[in-house]
Amino acid sequence: LGNNVSSLTLDDEDTFKILIATDIHLGFLEKDAIRGDDTFTTLEEILQCARTNQVDFILLGGDLFHENKPSRRCLHSCISMLRKYCMGGTPIVFDIVSDQTVNFGTSKFPWVNYQDENLNISIPVFSVHGNHDDPTGSEGLCALDLLSTCGLVNHFGRSLSVEKIEISPVLMQKGTTKLALYGLGSIPDERLYRMFVNKQVTMLRPKEEEEQWFNLFTIHQNRSKHGATNYIPEQFLDEFIDLVVWGHEHECLITPTRNEQQLFYVTQPGSSVATSLSPGEAAKKHIGLLRVKGRKMNLQKIPLNTVRQFFIQDVVLADHQDLFTAGTPQVTKKVEDFCQAKVVEMLDQAERERLGCPLTPEKPLIRIRVDYSGGFEAFNTSRFSQKFVDRVANPKDVIHFLRRRENKEAVKDEIDIDYSRLVRTTALEGLRVEDLVKQYFEAAEQKVQLSLLTESGMGKAIQEFVDKDEKEAIEELISYQLEKTQRHLQGRGVTTEQDIDAEALDRARALRLDRGEAPQDPMEELGDAHMDSDEGVTPPPAPTRGRGSRGRGGRGRGRGELP
Amino acid sequence: LGNNVSSLTLDDEDTFKILIATDIHLGFLEKDAIRGDDTFTTLEEILQCARTNQVDFILLGGDLFHENKPSRRCLHSCISMLRKYCMGGTPIVFDIVSDQTVNFGTSKFPWVNYQDENLNISIPVFSVHGNHDDPTGSEGLCALDLLSTCGLVNHFGRSLSVEKIEISPVLMQKGTTKLALYGLGSIPDERLYRMFVNKQVTMLRPKEEEEQWFNLFTIHQNRSKHGATNYIPEQFLDEFIDLVVWGHEHECLITPTRNEQQLFYVTQPGSSVATSLSPGEAAKKHIGLLRVKGRKMNLQKIPLNTVRQFFIQDVVLADHQDLFTAGTPQVTKKVEDFCQAKVVEMLDQAERERLGCPLTPEKPLIRIRVDYSGGFEAFNTSRFSQKFVDRVANPKDVIHFLRRRENKEAVKDEIDIDYSRLVRTTALEGLRVEDLVKQYFEAAEQKVQLSLLTESGMGKAIQEFVDKDEKEAIEELISYQLEKTQRHLQGRGVTTEQDIDAEALDRARALRLDRGEAPQDPMEELGDAHMDSDEGVTPPPAPTRGRGSRGRGGRGRGRGELP
Repeated sequence: LGNNVSSLTLDDEDTFKILIATDIHLGFLEKDAIRGDDTFTTLEEILQCARTNQVDFILLGGDLFHENKPSRRCLHSCISMLRKYCMGGTPIVFDIVSDQTVNFGTSKFPWVNYQDENLNISIPVFSVHGNHDDPTGSEGLCALDLLSTCGLVNHFGRSLSVEKIEISPVLMQKGTTKLALYGLGSIPDERLYRMFVNKQVTMLRPKEEEEQWFNLFTIHQNRSKHGATNYIPEQFLDEFIDLVVWGHEHECLITPTRNEQQLFYVTQPGSSVATSLSPGEAAKKHIGLLRVKGRKMNLQKIPLNTVRQFFIQDVVLADHQDLFTAGTPQVTKKVEDFCQAKVVEMLDQAERERLGCPLTPEKPLIRIRVDYSGGFEAFNTSRFSQKFVDRVANPKDVIHFLRRRENKEAVKDEIDIDYSRLVRTTALEGLRVEDLVKQYFEAAEQKVQLSLLTESGMGKAIQEFVDKDEKEAIEELISYQLEKTQRHLQGRGVTTEQDIDAEALDRARALRLDRGEAPQDPMEELGDAHMDSDEGVTPPPAPTRGRGSRGRGGRGRGRGELP
Repeated sequence: LGNNVSSLTLDDEDTFKILIATDIHLGFLEKDAIRGDDTFTTLEEILQCARTNQVDFILLGGDLFHENKPSRRCLHSCISMLRKYCMGGTPIVFDIVSDQTVNFGTSKFPWVNYQDENLNISIPVFSVHGNHDDPTGSEGLCALDLLSTCGLVNHFGRSLSVEKIEISPVLMQKGTTKLALYGLGSIPDERLYRMFVNKQVTMLRPKEEEEQWFNLFTIHQNRSKHGATNYIPEQFLDEFIDLVVWGHEHECLITPTRNEQQLFYVTQPGSSVATSLSPGEAAKKHIGLLRVKGRKMNLQKIPLNTVRQFFIQDVVLADHQDLFTAGTPQVTKKVEDFCQAKVVEMLDQAERERLGCPLTPEKPLIRIRVDYSGGFEAFNTSRFSQKFVDRVANPKDVIHFLRRRENKEAVKDEIDIDYSRLVRTTALEGLRVEDLVKQYFEAAEQKVQLSLLTESGMGKAIQEFVDKDEKEAIEELISYQLEKTQRHLQGRGVTTEQDIDAEALDRARALRLDRGEAPQDPMEELGDAHMDSDEGVTPPPAPTRGRGSRGRGGRGRGRGELP
């Protein structure tokens, strides 16, 4: 199965050319005066790139939209760009040989857009939905469905059943190459994990010429371990797959890595916009040009030029005993000056790297995470921000103070909550909702500070679901809250009770779980803390704290460069 | 100019066939368990009708959508139906000879959809926007723009300037027939009135063969007089026009009436759904099939079969001295029984009329307006509603109590507010916003009970605009509030201070004026009261109070049947 041949660059009538991108998050911060156009500009770059490279189709891994209900401007721009770039007279030279009413069965027009006799499509887009733009409401519609109803996107990989998932591939043929495109739109990780464990997830394969198909699978789930069952281990995926396009994770790790156990490759294109100021987002953003010929593939990294630069550094004050001593006169001022110098340094680096890149926005994103444990005091960040208001895209949140070390020590013993117990119980179908909730609170009392769950937040949210008998939603909410609580106890963030309650309620109401991508979420900054303790599954390298530049060029090594 | 020839039914290569409809209000009450699908069903009927009749195009007079930001379901259904009915292989046999970049200049794709080489359109839809789906936000986009960007609707008649309006026609030619289609999307009436008066509205005409064009104008404004300058008198419209399609007014008065002064005809198709339980909405709903050949036209009324029946009756208790005497024992019970008998009678009538109409929904809308002035007491309407919960589509608001007579007497002397003064002042460009507000309050103090304008409502709303220096918005708000206040003083409704304030604030925030169509608006019931005092402009007949049936068949005579 040697299917990664790097010299496969010849474009011939047997070679599929596929543009791969994910997590475009169109509309993210669209009202921001500086960053408001970023996502739109980058979508346009991606579509232009598809056209320039004359790809056969575009494959998106979910979260095309940042908001579940995109604004009018956002929808309008998206439709407008898709019409501009993906419609036209260029003939499409591959066939679909599977049953399209199965592939696109959830659409009102259950066939691929380029075969619709009323539409002239030059570049078909295939997309699964992400957790941001997932189906909601009684009709189970998502923003992508508006695009598919317009005939501009082929929304696939949607499972209507919660009992079992059967993933039926879109079977494509170009010349002699046979491509089976599998997709699975975002599902709450806990639920999907359980379904995999219970063997409720099946992938269908063509009976004929089974070995001749190149099997491409698109998924939008947690890839890094956010708790025991709160991600999808690569090992869960069928080993007949050749390449997995993994959406949802924002770090660009696009060079395919081989899973030695399953013998398939995984590419993680990453988002095309930084929706949080965490280290993963600081990696240079790319999309991919995938070529498939027979069972061989080649993935060409294409850097995105319109993406705003993002530089992040960690500063641990206690590590700089030569410079700062807590409690001494003027130490806070010294720290501020130190940070200011860092920002200037990063801005200079940004400017140097931007030379010759006219498409890159002028103001970079800058973040310094200051660990001030050890008796240090925080300086006034709003005054600090003022100094960079004309040079930085995010002047208001350049500095992020945290006390990582101390708290980490303090709660070490409490973090081993038994997740598996909750999952096991809730998996029982016969259980009454009330029992579920009761069990949860019993578990919570033993393990968790109940004070986190005030009447106005978690409790109320749960009650909403009890009233509506929505077992699944409760379960998700509880898992989510448990995980958050655990993180809170780990004490690595600045989360308050109020934050958690408000969020729990919001999330409960939206009936969705959306982990760790909200831009203003203070928990956001903990993303990499989890990665620290990741095991298996080819984790991204752990960030090294307080060692100077960790910007674009500053990372130790990208996952894509692992052997 | 004898241009109304009723025998023009021959469909030949020189005859334009145009389906005319307006105020479809897609999504109105879409969450209602009984009525939720009504607007969708009727849009489908209209589109089917267009296809069956093989029309050249569909002309919509605005308010295709009920909500400025339609729900996903609503957008999805609309796109889906338009794609289903308006795309296809049928060739379009008329040409557009005007400059399309002018006609559709506000679109990202400034050309008619059926000439786009990437779209196969079988029935082009042309639409102006209404006050419900008007452009908002910094991009000035409206829901219709999503459809035009998809290529499913040709949004025209949009003026970007607030200084002057130049209406440039879409010039169409089919065989020897030349059709000039003018359109003007909804603009706050006061503003448009003023612009007409100030000669800021111009209609452009083709230089060549001026007399050969049939001039069709679509407008979405108040046609009935809602105050001195709060409507558009037909006399304002150019006399070279042949036919005006008047949107916004919900009563179906589709048979063209001749304006003897201007020598043009006006057709008022009316809404295809009752968005308020007022008499105008009880007239049978129609759409029109307009044929134009040379300068001759014929408009064929097509009844809509999917529209829910609506029956309304007025009961004035004081008029029934034979039956009821206020204050006597059991009189309230007697009144209730009387009303109950009325409802049963109306339900029976509804059932009879529905015979042979399988598409008409089973449960009709029923409304009895009970004028209980003269010392009578209201009975318990929720208990009353219970009796009809299975037979009526609107069980919760069948009965509407009002005290019309008494209040009318009481405030008779106060209703002559000098509107013209306000209009004149606000028209001055140089005036400062603060002066405007000050002037308003001075005027208000003299004429109006200031208690209506509490800190939390009108005042706050105005302050918002003062802060933002939005002169126009203030002016509209003030005019609107003045008018409301006047109506309040007329005392014909049950409006409370709170109603007015909350509404004022909402409207102010939305930066739009949207008069008198909100379904739950208590002011709604006053619509016909205004008509009572209408003068000129071929007003609809004044309702006769308390004279038994005023349902579908019960109206004295439709405006369309006036000589």
